[in-house]
Amino acid sequence: MSNNNLHSFGLGLATLDSQGKVIEVYYPEPVVSPAAEVVAALSIHCGYKAGNSDIRLSPAQRSTLSDDMTVPMSDLLRQTLKTTQSTVVAMFLAENSVPATVAEVYLKLHLLSHRLCKPHALNLQGAFGILRNIAWTNQGAIAVEELQARQLLARSQGQLLDVMSVDKFPKMVNYVVPTGVRIADTARVRLGAYVGEGTTVMHEGFINFNAGTEGSAMVEGRISAGVVIGEGSDLGGGCSTMGTLSGGGTAIISVGRDCLIGANAGIGIALGDRCIVEAGLYVTGGTIVSVLDHEGNLVQHAKARDLSGRSDLLFRRNSQTGAVECKTNKTSIALNEELHSHN
Amino acid sequence: MSNNNLHSFGLGLATLDSQGKVIEVYYPEPVVSPAAEVVAALSIHCGYKAGNSDIRLSPAQRSTLSDDMTVPMSDLLRQTLKTTQSTVVAMFLAENSVPATVAEVYLKLHLLSHRLCKPHALNLQGAFGILRNIAWTNQGAIAVEELQARQLLARSQGQLLDVMSVDKFPKMVNYVVPTGVRIADTARVRLGAYVGEGTTVMHEGFINFNAGTEGSAMVEGRISAGVVIGEGSDLGGGCSTMGTLSGGGTAIISVGRDCLIGANAGIGIALGDRCIVEAGLYVTGGTIVSVLDHEGNLVQHAKARDLSGRSDLLFRRNSQTGAVECKTNKTSIALNEELHSHN
Amino acid sequence: MSNNNLHSFGLGLATLDSQGKVIEVYYPEPVVSPAAEVVAALSIHCGYKAGNSDIRLSPAQRSTLSDDMTVPMSDLLRQTLKTTQSTVVAMFLAENSVPATVAEVYLKLHLLSHRLCKPHALNLQGAFGILRNIAWTNQGAIAVEELQARQLLARSQGQLLDVMSVDKFPKMVNYVVPTGVRIADTARVRLGAYVGEGTTVMHEGFINFNAGTEGSAMVEGRISAGVVIGEGSDLGGGCSTMGTLSGGGTAIISVGRDCLIGANAGIGIALGDRCIVEAGLYVTGGTIVSVLDHEGNLVQHAKARDLSGRSDLLFRRNSQTGAVECKTNKTSIALNEELHSHN
Repeated sequence: MSNNNLHSFGLGLATLDSQGKVIEVYYPEPVVSPAAEVVAALSIHCGYKAGNSDIRLSPAQRSTLSDDMTVPMSDLLRQTLKTTQSTVVAMFLAENSVPATVAEVYLKLHLLSHRLCKPHALNLQGAFGILRNIAWTNQGAIAVEELQARQLLARSQGQLLDVMSVDKFPKMVNYVVPTGVRIADTARVRLGAYVGEGTTVMHEGFINFNAGTEGSAMVEGRISAGVVIGEGSDLGGGCSTMGTLSGGGTAIISVGRDCLIGANAGIGIALGDRCIVEAGLYVTGGTIVSVLDHEGNLVQHAKARDLSGRSDLLFRRNSQTGAVECKTNKTSIALNEELHSHN
Repeated sequence: MSNNNLHSFGLGLATLDSQGKVIEVYYPEPVVSPAAEVVAALSIHCGYKAGNSDIRLSPAQRSTLSDDMTVPMSDLLRQTLKTTQSTVVAMFLAENSVPATVAEVYLKLHLLSHRLCKPHALNLQGAFGILRNIAWTNQGAIAVEELQARQLLARSQGQLLDVMSVDKFPKMVNYVVPTGVRIADTARVRLGAYVGEGTTVMHEGFINFNAGTEGSAMVEGRISAGVVIGEGSDLGGGCSTMGTLSGGGTAIISVGRDCLIGANAGIGIALGDRCIVEAGLYVTGGTIVSVLDHEGNLVQHAKARDLSGRSDLLFRRNSQTGAVECKTNKTSIALNEELHSHN
Repeated sequence: MSNNNLHSFGLGLATLDSQGKVIEVYYPEPVVSPAAEVVAALSIHCGYKAGNSDIRLSPAQRSTLSDDMTVPMSDLLRQTLKTTQSTVVAMFLAENSVPATVAEVYLKLHLLSHRLCKPHALNLQGAFGILRNIAWTNQGAIAVEELQARQLLARSQGQLLDVMSVDKFPKMVNYVVPTGVRIADTARVRLGAYVGEGTTVMHEGFINFNAGTEGSAMVEGRISAGVVIGEGSDLGGGCSTMGTLSGGGTAIISVGRDCLIGANAGIGIALGDRCIVEAGLYVTGGTIVSVLDHEGNLVQHAKARDLSGRSDLLFRRNSQTGAVECKTNKTSIALNEELHSHN
């Protein structure tokens, strides 16, 4: 049976709007590439045939699925299947294609935040159009069209309906907190962020979906959608990385290992490993940079985008001449000579 | 009856402190310029005579008001009037004068956020002195003087009293979410903000009261009190607009249509339409700017404040000379010649 | 009895993890240097002998302590001792030494935020290693290892377990709101911050532990760990102060009285009194500064760190030459002459 190969799968608890439409799904234990016998069992219990499909399970289906020890899941999830009053969705993702439903987008966002898939590995085309604008409240997710009545109802009963966010993407930590991370203000990390083991996101840090850190990192700046930060790098307070969604165009920005971007600095180019951008300096792709050798002699002028992705660079603004300079070590000089030869 | 002309009106649910004083009011359905027959009916039910007046309604008053179909309101509000245990306030605003009470300031803040009045259209003089400093908690608004005992009481009962803000202004979205907006972190938009249809406020965005966007906009920077952003403009991550409350003085800063203020940039001057400020550049009123024509030739030096409000300008810092430059298109050159003639 | 001298003392309500270990403590009424007779009474009721010690009180101990009017405490705390189901901890701090327990670190953080001790006055060495990584939720503090099961349990019951922070330090205001402050977004002030009377922390402001303001201040920028801001100073939106934890090294940064750091600016040096840093300018220790006299004549070049802590300085970047300049008044010139003599 060809359908026994799945890209990924999740059993989720869904919130519905008053029309009965799914507006968000919580998948506590998503899996990639489930074993063939697991897929076979799931298919039988859930009535799955083929393709990308989200199936709402009946109490009977949930019960038999819960009892089938072929399908691996925690005891707590097994028990939840039998007892919950919530809508349970089984999301079968046969292939990583353009998503079509809310349940599908949510599974992909979970896969990223569970570190089961890396940023850029999943097709999220059109996700903005599929996701609903939700009021994320202390009473759960509410379709934004239904909020006003709910607020009045709450207040008339002397309660507070606290609206924490009005957005298509929820915050990550209400779905998963991956191991070994600290996130001081959780409002600033969206579901779909990939937060590496050992990463601290301070109050001023931010990580968008389909973006993140590969390992240990200190994040006090903003990681835009699509941007990935290498192991051991440090993003200073309030620093900025240009995203592909907001002016960065098609060039995907990344930061290598052991980099330091200073406070209030910013980059519109990719950085290799061991690069430093001085606090307060914004390097855009079009910035004309004076490239210096390790003795401080001018080697050439270059557009910053031509230095994109190179390692061992230090970007600074000369505090006497105002010129943006890039100081390199010997390794980098070699790269610059090569760069020279292409001029 | 002369009082049948009102500037605005609201029926509100109020929170009282332990002394019985109003500390905040939620007006679910405020109105401007209510029809004369509506004002007449309201006046009878509420015992309103004249002037700006907030009247606490008795259960009997609430009941007869609820039954009067002359007064337009939602069925839910009609029902709430009859059933709520909360204090109900009828706020009659005869004229847009210096506010005197908490209930009055709150009505004005609601009118702004409901998009019934534009920023600067309402008299908010002295509002800071009238509003109480409130602990905004998961148990509702609490006068800050009463917080300590409430916190101990909650903790002694094994509960959490979560204090989300200690401020005179609450966040907007617990009062109204206007149509067609997304606000990723709602703590960053105060009640009294005017958020235009189609505006997205990202996690790093901020909108103060009596400030906002006229239509579709992307807000990842800070809109200070009094600042208004035109349709189609984009405020990059962490960018700053100087407000009249904090150093901007009496000059009111605004941004026209289709502008782009880059990430971590800032302005202390007004921008016309189609202006760009390069990422990382802060243009204050006193910045000396090298004005260039469309071929890049120096036309003149000018203080940035003399360019305030002009359209089609691109501000950047020359990455080799460190000079702040303003590049213009032909239209702008004409303006600059005019400017020249005033030197 | 030598133990009648205590550095400080607190009665706290503790949260335990599922293993029974203390993960956080709320001390509603901490005291420094309690009177000898109070210590004597406390020692008897709690069975305290010597040293730094946190003692969990039995219901009997709590009851006799509650009845002893020698020990000053509020009526509400007295009552709480008798009625609470929570774990009650008596934290005796004999000396201000390297902390050893969660209860001890929390008492020190409380002493700072209650303004009973100034930043740098308490030994917090190794605090990061002692504190647990906690999920701060709407259901209270949860050990991060136990979060996943709690989230699934909540969702299966149709509830939201909202995770507001995953961090070693909680936000201050759920423990104490000192008098005379406003904190617009409380997620941005950690327990252990010292927030002076008259301080407003706006939405973009931030105060780390062991840092803060000495009195009235406007904080729209970030106060890093260890940094103290003097009376009357104004930190503009998004401005940065380098902390000792993140790249500032061993030099402790402070800001004197009546200073103004502009929006999106930053400092890697200490400022004396009445200093100004222009909006958007980042002054690091290594920045070469052109020191000008009050007539604008160049006096010397200096590294910014050599100007650290001096008063009456204005830092700006010349908008035509790109040079970082420091303009001084006469008093400062004298200081610069002195500085000259050391070159």
